[in-house]
Amino acid sequence: MQDFNVTAYDVEGKVDYDKLIERFGIKPIDKSLESRIKKDAGELHFMIRRGIFFAQRDLDWLLGEYEKGNKFYLYTGLAPSGNMTIAHLIPFVFTKWLQERFGAEVYIQIPDEEKFLAKRDTSLTLEKVHELAEEAALNILALGFDLKKTKIFLDTEYAGFMYKQAVRVSKYITFSITKDAYGFGNDTNVGTLFYPTMQAVPAFMKSVQEGRNIPCLIPLGVDQDVHFRVARNAIEKLGYYKPAIMHAKFLPGLKGEPKMSSSDPETAIYLSDSPETVKKKVNKAITGQQATAELQKQLGGDPDKCSVCQYYRFLFEPDDTKLANIFDGERKGTLLAGEHKAALAKTINAFLEEHRKKKETLRGKLESVMLKG
Amino acid sequence: MQDFNVTAYDVEGKVDYDKLIERFGIKPIDKSLESRIKKDAGELHFMIRRGIFFAQRDLDWLLGEYEKGNKFYLYTGLAPSGNMTIAHLIPFVFTKWLQERFGAEVYIQIPDEEKFLAKRDTSLTLEKVHELAEEAALNILALGFDLKKTKIFLDTEYAGFMYKQAVRVSKYITFSITKDAYGFGNDTNVGTLFYPTMQAVPAFMKSVQEGRNIPCLIPLGVDQDVHFRVARNAIEKLGYYKPAIMHAKFLPGLKGEPKMSSSDPETAIYLSDSPETVKKKVNKAITGQQATAELQKQLGGDPDKCSVCQYYRFLFEPDDTKLANIFDGERKGTLLAGEHKAALAKTINAFLEEHRKKKETLRGKLESVMLKG
Repeated sequence: MQDFNVTAYDVEGKVDYDKLIERFGIKPIDKSLESRIKKDAGELHFMIRRGIFFAQRDLDWLLGEYEKGNKFYLYTGLAPSGNMTIAHLIPFVFTKWLQERFGAEVYIQIPDEEKFLAKRDTSLTLEKVHELAEEAALNILALGFDLKKTKIFLDTEYAGFMYKQAVRVSKYITFSITKDAYGFGNDTNVGTLFYPTMQAVPAFMKSVQEGRNIPCLIPLGVDQDVHFRVARNAIEKLGYYKPAIMHAKFLPGLKGEPKMSSSDPETAIYLSDSPETVKKKVNKAITGQQATAELQKQLGGDPDKCSVCQYYRFLFEPDDTKLANIFDGERKGTLLAGEHKAALAKTINAFLEEHRKKKETLRGKLESVMLKG
Repeated sequence: MQDFNVTAYDVEGKVDYDKLIERFGIKPIDKSLESRIKKDAGELHFMIRRGIFFAQRDLDWLLGEYEKGNKFYLYTGLAPSGNMTIAHLIPFVFTKWLQERFGAEVYIQIPDEEKFLAKRDTSLTLEKVHELAEEAALNILALGFDLKKTKIFLDTEYAGFMYKQAVRVSKYITFSITKDAYGFGNDTNVGTLFYPTMQAVPAFMKSVQEGRNIPCLIPLGVDQDVHFRVARNAIEKLGYYKPAIMHAKFLPGLKGEPKMSSSDPETAIYLSDSPETVKKKVNKAITGQQATAELQKQLGGDPDKCSVCQYYRFLFEPDDTKLANIFDGERKGTLLAGEHKAALAKTINAFLEEHRKKKETLRGKLESVMLKG
């Protein structure tokens, strides 16, 4: 028995990220790599400073290419199965920053078939997924992506291009490989077995389209690393660069679950939640504080165990000094649970209100960034 | 141990077609069904009269729909892996007749990924398959299909439409199902595992495109039945008619092999063979005759064991009276091997010359019948 488990479809137990680095065969983003990113980007994103993006594959190589003038493109994505949560934003917030700092083009895959195929119940139809996909695309773009340098595509709507390339990848991926990597079994449907090859395609598709080898960087949640453990070898056999990867930790659930899940409405904050709902949910959040206000004032709390503190750290307080003040307040007992939660709810609601406004301005512009064919 | 074996990828031993009907759970084309086809079509194709198309699924139902005015469309196909042989023509000759007699539209699938994925060696690239596919399309159309009622497509070039539908099929097909049906194993690549769902799509694609349920009839070599044993249930679950099927026997190899194979250049006649090559190959064919001309004159031969007689029966002598004369000559010993073979070589060469001429007239017209997207 393992004390925790991270697969593409599930996260269980308290995740030890150092152990995960060993298990997955990935490498930490160490201080020298941080300096190199800072030098190349001109600044360091708070998600790197705070170890939220904590691991990588071949990032040294990618930055080496960049420094030689060989620019990379960015690839990330989101598989819709329900409403988007604030946890879904993490890779996109970071990708948007990379786009800005490195002048990179961004390809965003919306694998509309993935969850349709993976879920046993039949209520998640492809039509339902397509509605979710459109909302997801708008939510992502509203983070401020440069529309001139960003492309979004649904797998089934861009299959005219993608299927052929997925077929080329699939020649190198056997049932055994997917069984070992994903835990697939005899009762897994063949669509799910084939799907990883569709997820591999965007990691080399710009190279196919432009007829030359172009480096690719994939920021993702660390649970998605498995797709590229499988695909990187196949991509190399096809003659393309293996994509570089940067891995993010999981935003915990409001009640301290290892990963906020869109399928748990009590402990997830959706981008569509009303201000009242956000207040109610945050009010039930777990903190690192003592059982009573008196004890908290005397003994102080633990910011690492406080989901309110963690939400500031992951997303809602980019300023390190201000974050340190919040953590200090929690630690010293000067910040009590009520005001702590109320302040976070206010911050989240201000973000969501602004985000929804931006989203609506983009509704008419979606067609221009969608790849079809 | 079975005395013979028929899978989608291999045929071994002397095929007992009555046993195959039982094994596959298909039904014979009996006399009453023959009469019904004759009534609806206005005549009976020699391939039905001679039991070359010998079995079926749901043909009664399909003809019932036709008689009520609910027209069907035809779907057949060819997976290119090398040059086409005369054996490949059998389902197409028959499909062309069905098109003519029933006024049916024809969809011809060229699954360019199938053999690319199935062959372990990497010399059969997708690019090579595409060259073969273009020649195959021309060879098929040259049999006289009505260009206004015929559509041809390569899977990777029509995947913009097909992939989404294949995904819907794939939700109902597990690894277990393909393992049992095709003998796939842990070392089978995931492209090959997914492929059967792409082969299923044309059996209901006209229904998708027109937004109403349209019957479909698939004439095929009996080794391809497995694809629809698997797919028919999934197609029904998606709410479409299960396709009806008509099954053809195998044209034997020149030396009596159970099935002419395009991968055996000695015993296959290619559409591209020169007149000299055809003569040489036919000259080495096995006949049902005695060891010497003297013995043959005395004892006579066996047309069932004579590949020369069989080639007339399957393809090159549509006239039953003339065929009976040839068989009689073989049986009574009045027709000796030399002239028997020379006459067949001449007939084949006349056919090939005419066929190649027709093919060249179609080269510029291919684009108009190809479905892309």
